[in-house]
Amino acid sequence: MTRIDTSAETQPELSKDANAAPALIALDWGTTALRAYLLDANGAVLDTRASPAGIMNLPKPAAEGGFDTVFEETCGAWLASIASLPVIAAGMVGSAQGWMEAPYVSTPADPAALVAGIVRVKTLKGTTVHIVPGVLEDGALPNVMRGEETQIFGALASDPSLDQQPHGGLIGLPGTHAKWAVVSKGRIERFYTFMTGETFGALRDHTILGRTMRATDQQDLGAFIRGVDTAKDAGHAGLLATIFSTRTLGLTGQLQPEQQADYLSGLLIGHELRGLNEVLAREEADLAGKALRLIGNDALCERYRLALARFGCHDARTVAHATERGLHRIALQAGLIQPSPSASN
Amino acid sequence: MTRIDTSAETQPELSKDANAAPALIALDWGTTALRAYLLDANGAVLDTRASPAGIMNLPKPAAEGGFDTVFEETCGAWLASIASLPVIAAGMVGSAQGWMEAPYVSTPADPAALVAGIVRVKTLKGTTVHIVPGVLEDGALPNVMRGEETQIFGALASDPSLDQQPHGGLIGLPGTHAKWAVVSKGRIERFYTFMTGETFGALRDHTILGRTMRATDQQDLGAFIRGVDTAKDAGHAGLLATIFSTRTLGLTGQLQPEQQADYLSGLLIGHELRGLNEVLAREEADLAGKALRLIGNDALCERYRLALARFGCHDARTVAHATERGLHRIALQAGLIQPSPSASN
Repeated sequence: MTRIDTSAETQPELSKDANAAPALIALDWGTTALRAYLLDANGAVLDTRASPAGIMNLPKPAAEGGFDTVFEETCGAWLASIASLPVIAAGMVGSAQGWMEAPYVSTPADPAALVAGIVRVKTLKGTTVHIVPGVLEDGALPNVMRGEETQIFGALASDPSLDQQPHGGLIGLPGTHAKWAVVSKGRIERFYTFMTGETFGALRDHTILGRTMRATDQQDLGAFIRGVDTAKDAGHAGLLATIFSTRTLGLTGQLQPEQQADYLSGLLIGHELRGLNEVLAREEADLAGKALRLIGNDALCERYRLALARFGCHDARTVAHATERGLHRIALQAGLIQPSPSASN
Repeated sequence: MTRIDTSAETQPELSKDANAAPALIALDWGTTALRAYLLDANGAVLDTRASPAGIMNLPKPAAEGGFDTVFEETCGAWLASIASLPVIAAGMVGSAQGWMEAPYVSTPADPAALVAGIVRVKTLKGTTVHIVPGVLEDGALPNVMRGEETQIFGALASDPSLDQQPHGGLIGLPGTHAKWAVVSKGRIERFYTFMTGETFGALRDHTILGRTMRATDQQDLGAFIRGVDTAKDAGHAGLLATIFSTRTLGLTGQLQPEQQADYLSGLLIGHELRGLNEVLAREEADLAGKALRLIGNDALCERYRLALARFGCHDARTVAHATERGLHRIALQAGLIQPSPSASN
């Protein structure tokens, strides 16, 4: 899957403890970027490295050692100091187009299931990289994720009460392909994918809707909320019908060219939440009054909070550092590291 | 609006009457093509001409006489024989980007309202071209059409019983921007636009969904119907969620690369009909058991018939020659031509 690079959400909390010892190299290796974390045994971030060499953007083909080269450039210095550091990786690096395929684990999935599905690839210098599998929900409309499962367990590690809600906890990961996961008893029970971000880009850049838009640096949150409300209240004819109003509200002088992109964004996010609410309704749940969590970059999560409020949901905090915490959590489960005594108190 | 060129649907029924006299030049002038008909007083087609010079495709800019040039090239020979022939035109030629803007007429709209909204443009050689306005339905989700209103009145001219149904007649015009119009008592009461064709193209050509598709000359109607059924039965999470199954059914070996485009097409048309059904439900109407009419090219109308059958609608004939019949109908209403005595019997 195209994964959203959520690494820009916040600066990592670099450890202040000068005595903390490196214990783990944790990699978030997606389609368009690699982010590497050097963690201590308790998951504190000691150092980070970033590379634009996502799996679709390697400096040379995989067959010619592209993954090895990028890994060495990014993590070589850390391993030069401590050659025995364990390495864990999540994301598209485990896809069929990745370094080595880590077949999907089926829902319901807990960290133990992910650990059982880890595949190991050995670098040219002999380091073993442990690749976390993605998760598959099979059925008439199968769903897959790679990387988000790790972020979800990172969020649960920070906030263990999250999955104790009556209908399970709900975690949203906005982006190119937004994911919504229902978590319960430490497991990913089921999840949904909405191609919201990618559809927005395709409609804006490759249909008539973009022709009347004028780009601007300013967000127009009023236009955004108008789009959300239109999808929520008048969206019964479906997305294919409501999106045309981006153009016709312009033609009738009700929406300025500078507002049309934000309006369309609101429409699509509104349709996503409307669809999510219909799914929840089947389990007699509702976004209204729900306490949920978001994982993603701050600006996008803020948009989702505004949209969720229109659906009556006013408790949707962003979970920071979900990626590195999830990698740490799974490495612990896999026995790649041991928690230090002070952390086990 | 981007109009669908429906001229390819069938060959015009050229008149066999050698004595029939030319009485009207009728133009279907859209974004990407111009089709011109030479009609007798009863609407029989005596001759046709086609040009790729749609309004976005003129050989020179409008300000430099682009419309005049194309009109002269296409219709000059007809006018050279009979200089007094009246000329009527419908489609995007009347938009703000057209030859002269014919402001929209509001719903409910009948042929008399269209005639009242006709604008006249004089060619360099002194011929008056009568441009039929489009139709606007105002509201929270405004809708507009240009050209389809003329086709709809053409369909009503062929089949006057169409608008005598309890909830009004329903006419669908599949295509880039599919229109569905409710007609009653000779008027377009209201209509809906679904950006089905254009969204399909944008998703196929500009998202991850296209990457696993393999192009083929063969239609896979089984895959198409599977898409329709998925939207109909499992589409509650909405289009943004269901479209992702195009990819995941491929990843899980349930949909071959050659089938994925037809499946996606079925999904989108299924979502269109699902949305249409929700709109109809508000008026206690339903596609199931409905007798409706389609206007458009034969292959696309056949796909819609297959999809409509999944929604319980088994009477959805294609109306042929709707464009030229509509232009003739409006020219009669405008007094540009008089019906011949034999036709008035």
